[in-house]
Parts: sequence; structure tokens; C-alpha cells
Amino acid sequence: MYNFPSRLLENAVNELAKLPGIGRKTALRMALHLLRTPPEEVEAFGASVVKMRQEVIYCSRCKNISDKELCDICANPKRDSSTVCVVEDIRDVMAIDNTGQYTGVYHVLGGIISPIEGIGPQDLNIGSLIERASSGEVKEIILALPTTIEGDTTNFYLFKKLNPMKITISMIARGVSIGDELEHTDEVTLGRSILNRTPYEGMK
Amino acid sequence: MYNFPSRLLENAVNELAKLPGIGRKTALRMALHLLRTPPEEVEAFGASVVKMRQEVIYCSRCKNISDKELCDICANPKRDSSTVCVVEDIRDVMAIDNTGQYTGVYHVLGGIISPIEGIGPQDLNIGSLIERASSGEVKEIILALPTTIEGDTTNFYLFKKLNPMKITISMIARGVSIGDELEHTDEVTLGRSILNRTPYEGMK
Repeated sequence: MYNFPSRLLENAVNELAKLPGIGRKTALRMALHLLRTPPEEVEAFGASVVKMRQEVIYCSRCKNISDKELCDICANPKRDSSTVCVVEDIRDVMAIDNTGQYTGVYHVLGGIISPIEGIGPQDLNIGSLIERASSGEVKEIILALPTTIEGDTTNFYLFKKLNPMKITISMIARGVSIGDELEHTDEVTLGRSILNRTPYEGMK
Repeated sequence: MYNFPSRLLENAVNELAKLPGIGRKTALRMALHLLRTPPEEVEAFGASVVKMRQEVIYCSRCKNISDKELCDICANPKRDSSTVCVVEDIRDVMAIDNTGQYTGVYHVLGGIISPIEGIGPQDLNIGSLIERASSGEVKEIILALPTTIEGDTTNFYLFKKLNPMKITISMIARGVSIGDELEHTDEVTLGRSILNRTPYEGMK
């Protein structure tokens, strides 16, 4: 694309372009921004990502990113540890906890099964989920994975593993988003929302 | 927005969100990507930007980013050093050089005058441009700054400074982009392209 006049700049652009969603043009814009930033701030920037990568730990129970051996959610006695919500990654934990509607605990898989990306069950925190489920403490497992083919595949894999145990297995509701116009809802969602209709219980 | 379960993650997200055009959501996606990247690659990432910031130098003549005291363009005896193209930053040097239409040299201002962003003439490489222009070696200065109010302001400022010297001052042509439909060209560009029409010289 370009002949960079500096190897140092080129290296930095190549590294920045490895970030997800960042092309070489954006990476160059970032590198030029960093060149206008005081050196000590650029050092703090570099150090923060390296330190995170080297020192971050994962909760021994739910596998969420944490600074402690047991994360704040798992360690909170007010959370219902008999209900476990299975999610793909930390963003889902934060999103669900942000709703204020959930008082149970989580289990972070660290990804979902994706043959295309070469991610199999052995690459995910599934063994530790089975272990938790078979400990006798868990009553319900809520599958809250993405509503994609990969999410459905992972749901089905987990269902097969968890079904023999005496545990309620549920799945987050799928349907028309609240506030959405029906005409703007995609066909698959709309079709399924009719098939999977629920009893009307009046205004809530 | 979110309560991060890890201070290390939060720090890295805050730092990544300082990059231009990156919000906290994207920064979190980047941080999670880095957590899945081997530690030695994250170290190379961090080191590349810090090294660039610490070690990059600027060409002593044209102020472009360079690894050498005199950049490859300024050091190239085949380039016409009597024609100097004034640009905002290195991206413009690369874009213009990529066209293969320009054989002169450059002068990189490192920005343009922008009262809103608090950037005045003293923050730019203007003193060194005046010095080059008054050395007697320069015959023409081509202003190739953005076609914005800030670009026009900077053009006018430079014109006032350079006009007393015996130098041709020109500006890159402005008009309808080649390959564009007239109906899709903005009004200002189209209006000016009629006012500033040029003699028709047949097919080139």
C-alpha cells in the first residue's frame, strides 16, 4: 500500500493493525496520534496492555477475568450460587449484570464452539462447568450464548453434557426486541417469535 | 458504563480508548483480543509503539518522519529540490508520492492552524519552511493542505509570509473528482469548479 519512510513507524503500524477491526489506514492514524502524545503517556499505554496480559488472572470458579482468586460476584454471599448463567465472555457478564435483573452467578466459557475458527469444546471452560454442575450445588443452568449457529451448536453440546444431571437447563428468551417495529424485525426472529409464542399475562 | 471486574483490564481499556476513534466498547474488544494473544506478541505490540515514540526522528530538512537525519526523498538527487510541496502530515507525503506525478520535495507542517484545537503557527514547522524558502534554492512552493477552513486559513497565513519572497506560490487544483457524477458533487465544489473553469485543451 505505502512505502513508509521509517521502519519504526512501519513496525508500530503493523502491530496496531493486528488489533481487531483496525486496518492499516486507521493504524497509521493511531501511530501519528501516538507520535504527538508525550513519551511518558505512550509508555503508560504500552505498559498497561503488557501488564494486563502478564498479570491478569481468572476467577477459579466462574473463569471470569478478575484481580482475585475468587471474583467479586462469586465471592458475594448475596448472589444465588445455585443458578449459573453460562456466557461467552466477560462482556456478557457485564451486560447481564448491568440489567440488574440477575442475582445468580456466571460461568464464562471464554468463547463458543466454532469449527471454522478451529475452536472446539476442549478450548473452552467446559470441563470446569461440568464439574460445577455435578457438585450438587447447582440447581439451574441458564444458557446465555449468542443467538448464532455457533451459539446454538455450543448450547446443544452443553445440553447433551448437562442433561443427564438433575439440573434445570434453560435458555434466554429469543424474540422481537422490546421497542422494535415488527416490520423491521428480521424474518427468522419474527417467524420463531410466532412459533414460540407465550401465554399473554396482561400488562406487566 | 460498566464495572470492570479487574483493575488491570480497566487500565488497559482506558489506555486503548485514548486512541483516536476508539470508544470504550471497541477498547474492551481490543483488550479481550490481547488477552487471547500470546504474551510475547503483546510485549512486541507494546514495545513497538514505545520504541517508535522514543526513537523516531524527523528529517532535518522537510520535517517528515524518518529513520535518518535526512529522509530518502530529501537525500534523493533525482528529486527537484527547487519545488517544495507543503503538506499537513506524513500521510499526505505518502499519498502524493504514491501518485507518481510529483518529483519535487516536501515540507511537512505537522498539522494546520486550528484555533478551535488551539493549534497556532508557532506549533507548526512554519519557521523552518520560511527559512528554506528564503535560502534562495526554492523556486516554487505548492500548497497542498486540506480543502477545509483550517486548510484555507493556513494557506493564507503561509501566503502572507511567503509572498514577499521571489517564489512562485501555487495551490493544488480543486474541483470535481475524476470519475464523479456531477449530480453527486457537493454544491460548493461544483459552484467553484464553474467559477474556476480552465481552458479546454482537448483529450489528454
